[in-house]
Amino acid sequence: MSLALKEYLAAKRKVVEEYLATLLPEEGPLAGHYTALRYSLLAGGKRVRPILCLAAAEIFRADSTPCLPAACALECIHTYSLIHDDLPAMDDDDLRRGKPTNHVVFGEAEAILAGDGLLTLAFELLATPELAAVVDPGAQVRIIRLVAQAAGSAGMVGGQSLDVAHEGKEVDLDTLRLIHRCKTGALITAAVQTGAVLGNADDEAFDRLTAYGDAIGLAFQMKDDLLNVEGTQEELGKAVGSDAERQKATYPALLGLEQTKNELEQTVRQAIACIEPFGERAEPLRQLARYIQERRR
Amino acid sequence: MSLALKEYLAAKRKVVEEYLATLLPEEGPLAGHYTALRYSLLAGGKRVRPILCLAAAEIFRADSTPCLPAACALECIHTYSLIHDDLPAMDDDDLRRGKPTNHVVFGEAEAILAGDGLLTLAFELLATPELAAVVDPGAQVRIIRLVAQAAGSAGMVGGQSLDVAHEGKEVDLDTLRLIHRCKTGALITAAVQTGAVLGNADDEAFDRLTAYGDAIGLAFQMKDDLLNVEGTQEELGKAVGSDAERQKATYPALLGLEQTKNELEQTVRQAIACIEPFGERAEPLRQLARYIQERRR
Repeated sequence: MSLALKEYLAAKRKVVEEYLATLLPEEGPLAGHYTALRYSLLAGGKRVRPILCLAAAEIFRADSTPCLPAACALECIHTYSLIHDDLPAMDDDDLRRGKPTNHVVFGEAEAILAGDGLLTLAFELLATPELAAVVDPGAQVRIIRLVAQAAGSAGMVGGQSLDVAHEGKEVDLDTLRLIHRCKTGALITAAVQTGAVLGNADDEAFDRLTAYGDAIGLAFQMKDDLLNVEGTQEELGKAVGSDAERQKATYPALLGLEQTKNELEQTVRQAIACIEPFGERAEPLRQLARYIQERRR
Repeated sequence: MSLALKEYLAAKRKVVEEYLATLLPEEGPLAGHYTALRYSLLAGGKRVRPILCLAAAEIFRADSTPCLPAACALECIHTYSLIHDDLPAMDDDDLRRGKPTNHVVFGEAEAILAGDGLLTLAFELLATPELAAVVDPGAQVRIIRLVAQAAGSAGMVGGQSLDVAHEGKEVDLDTLRLIHRCKTGALITAAVQTGAVLGNADDEAFDRLTAYGDAIGLAFQMKDDLLNVEGTQEELGKAVGSDAERQKATYPALLGLEQTKNELEQTVRQAIACIEPFGERAEPLRQLARYIQERRR
């Protein structure tokens, strides 16, 4: 990772985490409930989705700070999906980012509710009057629609449902691609699209950023699968080889390691080609695409 | 129930259920997932929240049909909350509206996802371009904010969390009121508020309808508690006496049956007084308040 990207990511993570920390009251009768949300929302993580959103907005506007409510909404959705995916009825994971999962600490009932609360908080953030400083209300409604479509039954939730339904079954490459496009890709694309709308991008720019988002979403999942085979538990903060153990369909299982790496490389190149016309201002997005390919966790 | 109200409710239920039925595709790779959503969303029910929304909008506009996406969003949220509340980790209910609960039929993983999908669908509906025929985008964003606040951690989700946390413990009347205001009241108030905003109500009218919503939300919960003590399983479609069995705090347990009935009567009167200035056009809301008090299930 280049020093410039390292500094960029560190700076963005800092503003994202500072904003997230303001969202959950520490006192009052609901403090106990908010503790469960805070536990997962402030547990670190790469913050890829909010950073993609901010970086996309920065193509069109010098200061992305006023976009933080929308960027952080995407992290709330991502975090809720991890909490629910880790539940005993789903993937039954005990470890996430090197810490016990939400239901291990707070119990299943509270973990379900923490996820529900974070998902709803995301839409509260997307509908905040603060965003009126950035876009007109029509664009704000458009963002909410894009995010809801990406996060819901035709996107992330549907992808997880397909994933659960196919566990332990033979899955062909088309089905695997559909699962990942829904489960991981849709929200990553929506993060980039949200940044585009916050930047008042025109239709052509919006379409280019959508294609970029689709490509890195696919790359992200291929890399996740590779890490699950090749990473170490210390690097990942979760169990290694768990996909194979659960007989989950993965790219390496279907394509082999080498072809997965080749397709990953091609997909990242394609992502970078999509944003070529934006020049220097798209440099963070370009480097983020490389980072997705090269990351160790 | 008056004949006029009976006909009004039947007509509204019909349009709501027809609209809901259009939302969930029956074919395609995600058909299995949507089956679980449809099972609970089209399982009958009183449709109180969408009808309150439509009835509030009708104070200000002759035809509430274009308001259906927003009204039905409220039903999606209500249905998701029932699916998650019924889960083994929460209330562990096997029966709902006389049918096996979602997780009994589809398994816990799919039930969690069906709830997640319905919650997200609600915000997709609230952000639909169809509503541009009814209100300007600023009002649409305001509705999304109101609903997210009411449904989330400071409202319904937080109320359920408090309820779970206090199960089997001594609860005083203030805490019971807080739990119910969050868990049931907030979304009922939001339903009426959504109708008010869809009707472009001025601030005074909005405040009156908010107060009406708060009062009938409280009345609704008191009546629910009374039914749990006094109803029959056939009427309720779920187990009777289950609150007492789980040592759940209820109004009858804290106030006694007679005082609960008195407070219910006073609360309904108060609700009706709030909407007095709207005259004839608020007649459905007036009758709905009485219906909430007199219903058998």
